[in-house]
Amino acid sequence: MTFERKPLADCVPELVATARGDRPATLVITGGKLVNVISGEILNGMSVGIQGGRIAYVGKDVSHLIGEDTQVIDANGKYIAPGLLDGHCHIESTQLTATEFARAVLPLGTTGGFFDAHEIANVFGLKGIKLMLDELRGTPLAGYMQVASCVPAAGPEFETTGAAIGPEEVAEAFTWGEDVIALGEVMNFPGVVYGDEKMLGEIQATLRAGRQVDGHFTWPSSDWRLPVYAAAGVTGDHECVTAEDVIERVRLGMYAKLRRGSAWHDVAKTITAHTEHGIDPRRIMLVTDDRSSESLRDEGHMDFVVRHAIAQGVKPVTAFQMATINTAERFGVARDIGSITPGSCADIILLDGNLADVNVVLTIAAGVVVAENGIMTAQLPAFTYPEEVRASVHLAQRPTAEDFIITTPIASGTLPTRVIKVRENHVETIERILTLPVEDGKLQVGQGDGLCKIAVLERHKGTGNKSVGVVEGIGFHEPAAIAMTVAHDSHNVLVIGNDDELMARAANAVADAQGGVAVITASGETLFPLAIAGLMSAEPFEIAAAQSAAISTALYNAGCTLNYAFMTLSLLALAVIPTLRISDKGLVRISPEDGIQLVPLFVQD
Amino acid sequence: MTFERKPLADCVPELVATARGDRPATLVITGGKLVNVISGEILNGMSVGIQGGRIAYVGKDVSHLIGEDTQVIDANGKYIAPGLLDGHCHIESTQLTATEFARAVLPLGTTGGFFDAHEIANVFGLKGIKLMLDELRGTPLAGYMQVASCVPAAGPEFETTGAAIGPEEVAEAFTWGEDVIALGEVMNFPGVVYGDEKMLGEIQATLRAGRQVDGHFTWPSSDWRLPVYAAAGVTGDHECVTAEDVIERVRLGMYAKLRRGSAWHDVAKTITAHTEHGIDPRRIMLVTDDRSSESLRDEGHMDFVVRHAIAQGVKPVTAFQMATINTAERFGVARDIGSITPGSCADIILLDGNLADVNVVLTIAAGVVVAENGIMTAQLPAFTYPEEVRASVHLAQRPTAEDFIITTPIASGTLPTRVIKVRENHVETIERILTLPVEDGKLQVGQGDGLCKIAVLERHKGTGNKSVGVVEGIGFHEPAAIAMTVAHDSHNVLVIGNDDELMARAANAVADAQGGVAVITASGETLFPLAIAGLMSAEPFEIAAAQSAAISTALYNAGCTLNYAFMTLSLLALAVIPTLRISDKGLVRISPEDGIQLVPLFVQD
Repeated sequence: MTFERKPLADCVPELVATARGDRPATLVITGGKLVNVISGEILNGMSVGIQGGRIAYVGKDVSHLIGEDTQVIDANGKYIAPGLLDGHCHIESTQLTATEFARAVLPLGTTGGFFDAHEIANVFGLKGIKLMLDELRGTPLAGYMQVASCVPAAGPEFETTGAAIGPEEVAEAFTWGEDVIALGEVMNFPGVVYGDEKMLGEIQATLRAGRQVDGHFTWPSSDWRLPVYAAAGVTGDHECVTAEDVIERVRLGMYAKLRRGSAWHDVAKTITAHTEHGIDPRRIMLVTDDRSSESLRDEGHMDFVVRHAIAQGVKPVTAFQMATINTAERFGVARDIGSITPGSCADIILLDGNLADVNVVLTIAAGVVVAENGIMTAQLPAFTYPEEVRASVHLAQRPTAEDFIITTPIASGTLPTRVIKVRENHVETIERILTLPVEDGKLQVGQGDGLCKIAVLERHKGTGNKSVGVVEGIGFHEPAAIAMTVAHDSHNVLVIGNDDELMARAANAVADAQGGVAVITASGETLFPLAIAGLMSAEPFEIAAAQSAAISTALYNAGCTLNYAFMTLSLLALAVIPTLRISDKGLVRISPEDGIQLVPLFVQD
Repeated sequence: MTFERKPLADCVPELVATARGDRPATLVITGGKLVNVISGEILNGMSVGIQGGRIAYVGKDVSHLIGEDTQVIDANGKYIAPGLLDGHCHIESTQLTATEFARAVLPLGTTGGFFDAHEIANVFGLKGIKLMLDELRGTPLAGYMQVASCVPAAGPEFETTGAAIGPEEVAEAFTWGEDVIALGEVMNFPGVVYGDEKMLGEIQATLRAGRQVDGHFTWPSSDWRLPVYAAAGVTGDHECVTAEDVIERVRLGMYAKLRRGSAWHDVAKTITAHTEHGIDPRRIMLVTDDRSSESLRDEGHMDFVVRHAIAQGVKPVTAFQMATINTAERFGVARDIGSITPGSCADIILLDGNLADVNVVLTIAAGVVVAENGIMTAQLPAFTYPEEVRASVHLAQRPTAEDFIITTPIASGTLPTRVIKVRENHVETIERILTLPVEDGKLQVGQGDGLCKIAVLERHKGTGNKSVGVVEGIGFHEPAAIAMTVAHDSHNVLVIGNDDELMARAANAVADAQGGVAVITASGETLFPLAIAGLMSAEPFEIAAAQSAAISTALYNAGCTLNYAFMTLSLLALAVIPTLRISDKGLVRISPEDGIQLVPLFVQD
């Protein structure tokens, strides 16, 4: 089965012929309560006629559209709503391929999204983004790709990535098609404000291509530099954690994206910009940003976010607007998606019970019924990633326990050492200076001291680059190690453990699997293979979600009880967020005052 | 003085440098009440910083943007609002050139518009549209051009026009620049509904160019065919005269344009779709469609329409949204115009007193103060139309009284004759069959019988095509005639009178003037010269408005007291509106049942 989204221009004659009754509809839905996100109304007794992938007619009566071969669905009083859109989402964070992501979210009523593949971009650059786009194009989703703006995140002097993206690459990506829709979140907001040429160049290339620029501004919204960032042409931002963050962005002409990811619970606070402060909701959107496959399985996707927003006191039709037409308008594609209107793509969901429950019982995408009662009914085409992408872990040699030894400038005694302290439910880390023992010229870590070693092994180019440091707050109460090729944003092999032997085993496990997450404890090995670029599972959604859950369980059992432990740990390599991080080039220290610096493990007086 | 509207992409580095304080602003406005049409708020104590043609900063404090050469305007508590946008307007209806239109409306706070030059298109085709676009580009206005879709209106078998436009011409026009923004009102809506290839071809060319399609649907909005029209990709329509017309269009995903022209007083009724029926206002726009130069002078332009909408009970900030951001979003240019936000074009008005009074006291367009206290302060560049356009009246020979004789198939007696009956305040006419006397083989008309002759002389190609008919309801109580080269939509020479000699004099007067309107009575000649394509005055706004008023007075004094008499008469040649019309090819009859037909003057048994 193929899912076609032809340009409206190509469909006009057949849509008009269908609408006037000269050509039978392929599918009609009769007698439902239409959630009209344009007029802001719920309309009773409405029917919809579809020709191929688009809506030909919306009205009280579609009997003149019904022919012998027309599929007729009686909505029987159920709600008919536009399919939900995710206005900012990293598919890689689900550890699913685009196809499996589609299988996971279509039954939940998500029919489109705006994806920023900046994880695979760090591994394979534009080629990686293009592959994910190609895969997306085969799914029933209205999938739009953003071009990752910050690859590498910190710069080549601080980390080794598999690829780099600059203004020329951005311009090239926009030639691939109109579904390459925007520049992905511009995380280097200080660079924009202070005139970094590469960042401004990427923004200019985007605007010249007639596309949108998405933002990521994490200084307080009261900072005088938010308008500076806006002046660069940034018109959307999901880094809102307070009502004020939303209000200030909207006032400056941005679309404020309210986020409910697995670990980012922002909607309850941010939605008050509308519910309490009365901000016009037209530029407010609901998004997920990052959700794990387990979250998709256990909570849901955009259905969950819309339901949650309504529970905060938003009028249901307004909440639907925030996940449909507002999102489509933000990206300039409201002619194609985001509403049930003649000419639009036939992306439609039926909902049973109260609208506020967002209980999706049927999903139509690109004019095809793809899911019913939570189950996919359509077969999606298989997409095969090239061998190169399934073999992306290039270590210089097989890791051994010796690789994790930290040699010291002294034979014995103690040394003041920089330690990364993990904070639960926070992305930021703390830099701690601890005085650690030395024996036989080696730093002693992990002997019941609550510390672990943390190492990054370069895996893109086989350089053999490697660094080893110390981390506090993991919580292992037994010999244990975890290794992973998901290590934001450069995605080298990150290894954490309190036992060099287990660390080597974990690193080898993910290397042998050509990517993944491995937890090694006395009781054995738990592996979540992520063969696609070392980031995504090659398995179906259900299996991947179970494997992801198994990693959580293994970590928990070994004493690592951090909330969303795997996601939290995978961010310890993200060299653009304060305070102390680790890359393949060593410890990286970030502060508002000094910017980014490589710093030595041992503190000199 | 030149008024530059550079693409945002080209301005990003200088805007960012200005916003962060490294480059002085060219202009700042301090301490006003900001009408924020994005958030829907009025914000006190706000300031705006401008660099060249765009806004660099919006916030409480712009002191870091002020340098030695920065022009500082203290708003002193006045309202600061985005410049008003007219979302559907025919400049030719003002009988002004684009430059003089700009001079008329800028002091009133209009800083941009979406213009459909379908009058000049009937005379000069694409060349005419391009000339008006070129002229617009020299004004301070954010001027966007729509491509006329229905040229000729009725088809070459029914009338002779100066040019024709089809799908290829539409596609070509969109290559001129991004300011060619949409397909102009598709008046041939039955053609669209019933699959006319030319109309669908024009729509497809428009959609392929990524542009918008504007509508014009005059069947009742309850007609089942409105969704058919919408399915063709039509997303805006100004033919709304009832609340239901607005509601149905918005529900179908269209932008509903509420019109307040000189003669179209629709807003009071149509606005109740929002004020009484609660329709989300985001897709409701205020427009003028057609306003005479006298109306601009005596009532105003968009300031008048916004004031009028507020008087109907719309929240002031909502009414401003309907004339700013909604309009910009409808055409996909909200990144450039329609709000006061960083990066946007610096099109800003200051308003004194109550916001509801829409009392514009200062206008900034493209970053330049162009008007203060109702007076233009900026000099606009002169635009010279080519000689060809200033000599567009090509009659086969000089008209004489004999040209207006109606010869009859009988020498004397009476003949049943089709007569066009004019209805005041209605565009439609009535077909009457009157038995008229014949003497010496000539129809006797205008001898105290309340009738006039009405004639159309082809003037584009010197074919000598000519037709003469009879019209009732003009009201002349003395020998009088009017001739005009504004005769919708083909704009041949239309002559109406009760005296053949005066008719010939009137026709010669407009021919000698190379276009215009001439009223000839016993007391003399009143001429409103329209040298530009026979449609627009070459004079400044003030003179043109006075000349236009003189025509009204002359008609009134001769007994023609019809409301907006000149506009009403100029529509008697519009061969696509029921019931009886006249073209250079003869009488044209239009009915829903029989379509358009040429019919003979004398009714045969």
